[in-house]
Amino acid sequence: MNDKPGGVMLPTRIVPFPDSISQAAQTALRRLVDEQGVPLNSRHVMPALEEFDAWMQVKASVDAHYAAALEQLSGHLRAGVETIRVGSAVIHIATPVDPLSDDCAYIDLHGGALVFGGGAACRAGAQMQADRLRIRCYGVDYRMPPEHPYPAALDDCMAVWSHVLERYAPENVVIGGRSAGGNLAAAMTLRARDEGLPLPAALVLLSPEVDLTESGDSFQTNQWIDVVLPGSLMANNLLYAKGADLAHPWLSPLFGDFSKGFPPTFLQSGTRDLFLSNTVRLHRALRRARIPAELHVFEAMPHGGFMGAPEDQELSEAIESFVHQHLGALS
Amino acid sequence: MNDKPGGVMLPTRIVPFPDSISQAAQTALRRLVDEQGVPLNSRHVMPALEEFDAWMQVKASVDAHYAAALEQLSGHLRAGVETIRVGSAVIHIATPVDPLSDDCAYIDLHGGALVFGGGAACRAGAQMQADRLRIRCYGVDYRMPPEHPYPAALDDCMAVWSHVLERYAPENVVIGGRSAGGNLAAAMTLRARDEGLPLPAALVLLSPEVDLTESGDSFQTNQWIDVVLPGSLMANNLLYAKGADLAHPWLSPLFGDFSKGFPPTFLQSGTRDLFLSNTVRLHRALRRARIPAELHVFEAMPHGGFMGAPEDQELSEAIESFVHQHLGALS
Repeated sequence: MNDKPGGVMLPTRIVPFPDSISQAAQTALRRLVDEQGVPLNSRHVMPALEEFDAWMQVKASVDAHYAAALEQLSGHLRAGVETIRVGSAVIHIATPVDPLSDDCAYIDLHGGALVFGGGAACRAGAQMQADRLRIRCYGVDYRMPPEHPYPAALDDCMAVWSHVLERYAPENVVIGGRSAGGNLAAAMTLRARDEGLPLPAALVLLSPEVDLTESGDSFQTNQWIDVVLPGSLMANNLLYAKGADLAHPWLSPLFGDFSKGFPPTFLQSGTRDLFLSNTVRLHRALRRARIPAELHVFEAMPHGGFMGAPEDQELSEAIESFVHQHLGALS
Repeated sequence: MNDKPGGVMLPTRIVPFPDSISQAAQTALRRLVDEQGVPLNSRHVMPALEEFDAWMQVKASVDAHYAAALEQLSGHLRAGVETIRVGSAVIHIATPVDPLSDDCAYIDLHGGALVFGGGAACRAGAQMQADRLRIRCYGVDYRMPPEHPYPAALDDCMAVWSHVLERYAPENVVIGGRSAGGNLAAAMTLRARDEGLPLPAALVLLSPEVDLTESGDSFQTNQWIDVVLPGSLMANNLLYAKGADLAHPWLSPLFGDFSKGFPPTFLQSGTRDLFLSNTVRLHRALRRARIPAELHVFEAMPHGGFMGAPEDQELSEAIESFVHQHLGALS
């Protein structure tokens, strides 16, 4: 019909880190590029799908990196934590020192591209959430590939949901997750509904990886502009799915049918986030289905936030307020 | 401290129009680039600040273009319309054929970069809003530069606000505007508050131009990616301000102090919008001040929308629902 290139031609350019964010946020972005302005994280290349040992090495190396980052937290965490096993699932149960209520719980699903972030990081994450939210937090240390591909992680989430439902009324439980954890939080909610289980009071989805097919526009527009996640995670997605349909709603909850019921949802992203499209598309899908859903997009924020800037604190406070508002026993 | 370039280096690339939006939306984007993928609108260069006649010519040419686009609407508009003058302000008052209530009104502030979009376009816009919202709509044909720089437009808005307040209770009035109209809607609300006047029930701000200093990150990240507004509007902003401080809250309402009171606000943008940062920054500023504010960001949408795609219809329905919910006499 015409010879147009089917897209916009962009010239080479340097996109500056803006003054419209805090100094701490600017510093966080600046640390993640090299002398030429190329994101350091764009150097990482994932192994081929069948290279089991290579994946295990990457996993060990990334988790060691996470553990080092966690060192800075030690001493700040106050919640007690106990690790239990429920069927195949491992859960870190964190109990705050000054709970607002003993009738409420938060299920926390960690991030890490569906391959990383288990173990010590997951355990500390549960304590952080318990400290912030002042309710008991269940950190799900779900099984991951290459050893345990789909549906192992989702099965573990479902086992935890059944365990929690024996102890709490569903209207007193909120489920939340960041990135891959946002995928699992939304997927377990769709699966619970499909299987006739009760739904939680609300969901918190932080820069959620809800489309493993990566069909959203920001996978293109924010490529490299997101210095944390400068490119596709398709290698991880295929390792996770191990042949299952990436577009199935239990793998890509963006494609779920929300008109059959879904809880109120808090969605967060940033204007520089590779998952901006994931987030805004899910927000619209929920609103079209008349599900109460609120969208929060932070200026110039990449995937996962600025790691300790005032903007991250503002996000934490918004989450806390949303969670407390939606817990039946607190509202 | 280091030699880093203070930004991210982006290579030359073609960013495709995504499949994640409707066919009509894809077509709308495609029509706005040339054979090389360069946005057609990037060819327009505004005159120098002092070239009065050149600005008048650009204005006539843009308004003729708007009028041609309006031709397609004629025959579809149903609301009756009457044009009156209140002091220096011209208002097109559109009355729907089947009003939901005679006690409610909507004040519509047109877009057009603070220089264009008055006259016939403003008049038809008022009729469109009256048809959609089924309440009387006041389309403000505010004065603009080069003949009438700041504060003429804002003075006209204030005159209309006083006129409307003599006829309606403020809790039965919503003020809305797109782009430059979003600037004026927010600015007149801040000024009304500063001058001790009542505030409207709610505001609707569509891709609002609330920062004439253009300090937001999306002025860089979405440059050219937004095919409707591919670059800075600073020439227009300086023409409008005529020496007034661009950062004053009556010119750039983003910098207002919202803790002193502001109405519930609906904010809309798109992931490809040059004004994405304007929108999300204002949303956060309102939330920090505990003002009820809801954010709607549409996938791959440029400034001003897709001009008739299903996504635009979805936005219209979301606005309608918000407006009706917030009008005292309807809720």
